[in-house]
Amino acid sequence: MPFTLRDIARHLEGRLKGNPHIVLHRISPLEKAREGDLAFVDEEKLLPLAERSGASALILKEGWETEKNAIYVANPRLALIKALELFSHRRKPSPGIHPTAIIEDGVKLGENVSIGAYCYIGANTTVGDGTIIYPLSYIGENCRLGKNVLIYPRVTIYDYVEIGNNCIIHSGAVIGADGFGYVKIEGGHLKIPHIGKVIIEDEVEIGANTTIDRATMGETRIGRGTKIDNLVQIAHNVEIGENCVIVAQVGISGSVKIGKNVTLAGQAGIADHIEIGDNSTIAAQAGVIGDVPPNSVYSGYPARPHTQQMRVLALLQRLPEVVEKLKEIEKKIEEIEKGGTEK
Amino acid sequence: MPFTLRDIARHLEGRLKGNPHIVLHRISPLEKAREGDLAFVDEEKLLPLAERSGASALILKEGWETEKNAIYVANPRLALIKALELFSHRRKPSPGIHPTAIIEDGVKLGENVSIGAYCYIGANTTVGDGTIIYPLSYIGENCRLGKNVLIYPRVTIYDYVEIGNNCIIHSGAVIGADGFGYVKIEGGHLKIPHIGKVIIEDEVEIGANTTIDRATMGETRIGRGTKIDNLVQIAHNVEIGENCVIVAQVGISGSVKIGKNVTLAGQAGIADHIEIGDNSTIAAQAGVIGDVPPNSVYSGYPARPHTQQMRVLALLQRLPEVVEKLKEIEKKIEEIEKGGTEK
Amino acid sequence: MPFTLRDIARHLEGRLKGNPHIVLHRISPLEKAREGDLAFVDEEKLLPLAERSGASALILKEGWETEKNAIYVANPRLALIKALELFSHRRKPSPGIHPTAIIEDGVKLGENVSIGAYCYIGANTTVGDGTIIYPLSYIGENCRLGKNVLIYPRVTIYDYVEIGNNCIIHSGAVIGADGFGYVKIEGGHLKIPHIGKVIIEDEVEIGANTTIDRATMGETRIGRGTKIDNLVQIAHNVEIGENCVIVAQVGISGSVKIGKNVTLAGQAGIADHIEIGDNSTIAAQAGVIGDVPPNSVYSGYPARPHTQQMRVLALLQRLPEVVEKLKEIEKKIEEIEKGGTEK
Repeated sequence: MPFTLRDIARHLEGRLKGNPHIVLHRISPLEKAREGDLAFVDEEKLLPLAERSGASALILKEGWETEKNAIYVANPRLALIKALELFSHRRKPSPGIHPTAIIEDGVKLGENVSIGAYCYIGANTTVGDGTIIYPLSYIGENCRLGKNVLIYPRVTIYDYVEIGNNCIIHSGAVIGADGFGYVKIEGGHLKIPHIGKVIIEDEVEIGANTTIDRATMGETRIGRGTKIDNLVQIAHNVEIGENCVIVAQVGISGSVKIGKNVTLAGQAGIADHIEIGDNSTIAAQAGVIGDVPPNSVYSGYPARPHTQQMRVLALLQRLPEVVEKLKEIEKKIEEIEKGGTEK
Repeated sequence: MPFTLRDIARHLEGRLKGNPHIVLHRISPLEKAREGDLAFVDEEKLLPLAERSGASALILKEGWETEKNAIYVANPRLALIKALELFSHRRKPSPGIHPTAIIEDGVKLGENVSIGAYCYIGANTTVGDGTIIYPLSYIGENCRLGKNVLIYPRVTIYDYVEIGNNCIIHSGAVIGADGFGYVKIEGGHLKIPHIGKVIIEDEVEIGANTTIDRATMGETRIGRGTKIDNLVQIAHNVEIGENCVIVAQVGISGSVKIGKNVTLAGQAGIADHIEIGDNSTIAAQAGVIGDVPPNSVYSGYPARPHTQQMRVLALLQRLPEVVEKLKEIEKKIEEIEKGGTEK
Repeated sequence: MPFTLRDIARHLEGRLKGNPHIVLHRISPLEKAREGDLAFVDEEKLLPLAERSGASALILKEGWETEKNAIYVANPRLALIKALELFSHRRKPSPGIHPTAIIEDGVKLGENVSIGAYCYIGANTTVGDGTIIYPLSYIGENCRLGKNVLIYPRVTIYDYVEIGNNCIIHSGAVIGADGFGYVKIEGGHLKIPHIGKVIIEDEVEIGANTTIDRATMGETRIGRGTKIDNLVQIAHNVEIGENCVIVAQVGISGSVKIGKNVTLAGQAGIADHIEIGDNSTIAAQAGVIGDVPPNSVYSGYPARPHTQQMRVLALLQRLPEVVEKLKEIEKKIEEIEKGGTEK
């Protein structure tokens, strides 16, 4: 850092337009970009804003027009990923086991593992090659962590949890706590032991302070490539398919089954034992209390097809008018009836 | 492990049917059970599923019919608890104070206490017999922890908090942080000091990443036997009675009073100073902004009696039809009026 | 402790009425006050309750009447703050670096800093004078912590985060985790690197287990004096103005802009890229999916002006009646029509 426009264009495998020698110091959001900044245009309608911006150069899609220095690429969003990596100051811990890390008996560590200060790794746990565990995390007994897993500081993984390759787990996440299950008895509740597992498949990302409970028996499973935001609750025995997107503060109750490529928007809640089909989307704050077929968009409480729900909500705003009209009609009918008798 | 059917039947104090010598390796959910698995039937309607399942033996209620090997019990759910305990691989830390645990002056530890690596126990705190504190937890000054408390890794208990006997606190829970209270002044907010306590009575379970704030003055209190799920927020000066069930992501505002045996379903929110009577249930995602009498079921926002709310929500879906009818009626009236003048 | 009424009156700079020598042992909520307690009356309508209470003395507003011993003040709420400070048993850690704290290269510590046991402070981070970091916190590299910051146990601050003076951060908060951003590709999602910052201005308080994500590029910013409760989610690139109040379990999506003096009540959700104007209030559980002008009160889903929303919700309860009336009207019209043809 900094980089010339030519360096960046090469890194992005893009086509350079303008002065290859100008120097870019930062990559910035379009509306905040100033002299020395590279900015990124992902929608054609943003071109006028880009033109007015202070950015010294733009990343944009082949075919779009600009007067500025630019790097033309086929896919600006993929180019953005590369550009952000180029400008990143962030670095990861080096391999090595910090002398304060506590590694219990029978732990198997792969190659190039990094275990930070004040971590605790329970007995018989396996940690795959290249996995990084930041300081102050707790990993229980008999866990299996895959290769190139990234565990940020202060994560808890209870006993008998499996984490696939290339997963990222953010700070404060708790994986494998007991599910919330009791048997009601006279005068209280008896706790149901939770002896099942949590299995997180490959390429899953889990947000900060998210909680994923272990199964009563059997397993709670998060499918390959699924991305989970912060403060999400996933209860015992939930099964989530591949490549789902689960936004912050979503709550998923016990034994829910979610297909592939499902999106659950922020603060949505799913009642227990519900099934949600592949490729469906649940809108923000929706409350799902019945099964959702594949390829659906559901919203509201109780969640229903979104277009139907929107129509109803729009009409709801006309309710004062409906009540008003009803009164008018009643009056007219009264008059008609009176008129009738008068005749 | 494994166990013969006879061993298990004895442990459950159940009546054995079929081959006492068959060997069970796991206990599994009905729909996933395979050869060598014990499965559990808690509803008679599941019997056909149980019969088709791969399970080698079933736990079921005396009087229900099956062709499979079986253990008949009076109460399948209580038997399940015993069976899960039998098959559990999970074990708890042994008593002992880890050499890295920091125990400040005046701390009183009971017998057979376990304090894990990198824990911090503040001055003058008392820890009862048989209590287990997993690694990386912080317990403040002048706290009182009862007997046989189980504190999972990475829990925070601020100063002057009391935890009763047999409580379970899951990882990431924060008990005793300041309540959210300020005095609005010109140009900002002044913080109100929170000098009250949190008192958790006996047999309470607190979920992962749940937060329970201390009182401004006086106390925040959680009644005996109440069970709290993950990511729940309980604000300052809240009082919760005995044997309540509080599901994940519920939010309870300041000074709320909740009776005994109350259920708050997932993501429900309770406004400040509200009272909820004994034995009431608040449905998932409900927003309670007025008092709730005992023995009620409330739902929706603003929360109202559930049957009333459901009726309204059902009718809401007929709103397009209502608006349509209204138009028809207006048209007819117009015709009638025209007809009237024509006559 | 304890204090005479005279001592307390002096400390509060209030006017004493009654016996200056009585001794107060505690400050208590009005409804729980007993002999030896000081209680506080902040609304005139509470005077009868205060009179009946067991409190030995009251703090109340100049002009209000009581038979009890009392301290009269101009502003009871400000006096309460002083009285709570007086009666507080809580104390903060003394300055000093605990020998188990890990301080990486290039860290600059101010004067009278306190760093607790098992903390980790990353390379090149700056900690201002008088700042207190309780045990078991993780502070990343290249962070800047201001003066007199109070960081409770088990907080995570990722790399490149800035915290202003006099901020308070409660246990379990996670500041600077990656924003939730991906590029959808054939067969999955590619992670967008998050190389931006989080900037927390002066006098901000952040609740337990709250999460504030770092910007993709640029910054996530929390304005001076803003107060944030527990379990709040603030996504990447959010900008919040000065002196806002954000209640527990609120969720704010990516790139939202919030003005000054805005209140977001509990469990409200704000969709991405929304703007909320100065001095506006968003009601509890509201779902904001469009911009909110300044000085507004919005509620419901989708959020709309609160008075309009309340009117609609009230009418909603009359929907059964509306449907009933519609039926009656249809019947009458039918009769009229019949009558018409009969004539």
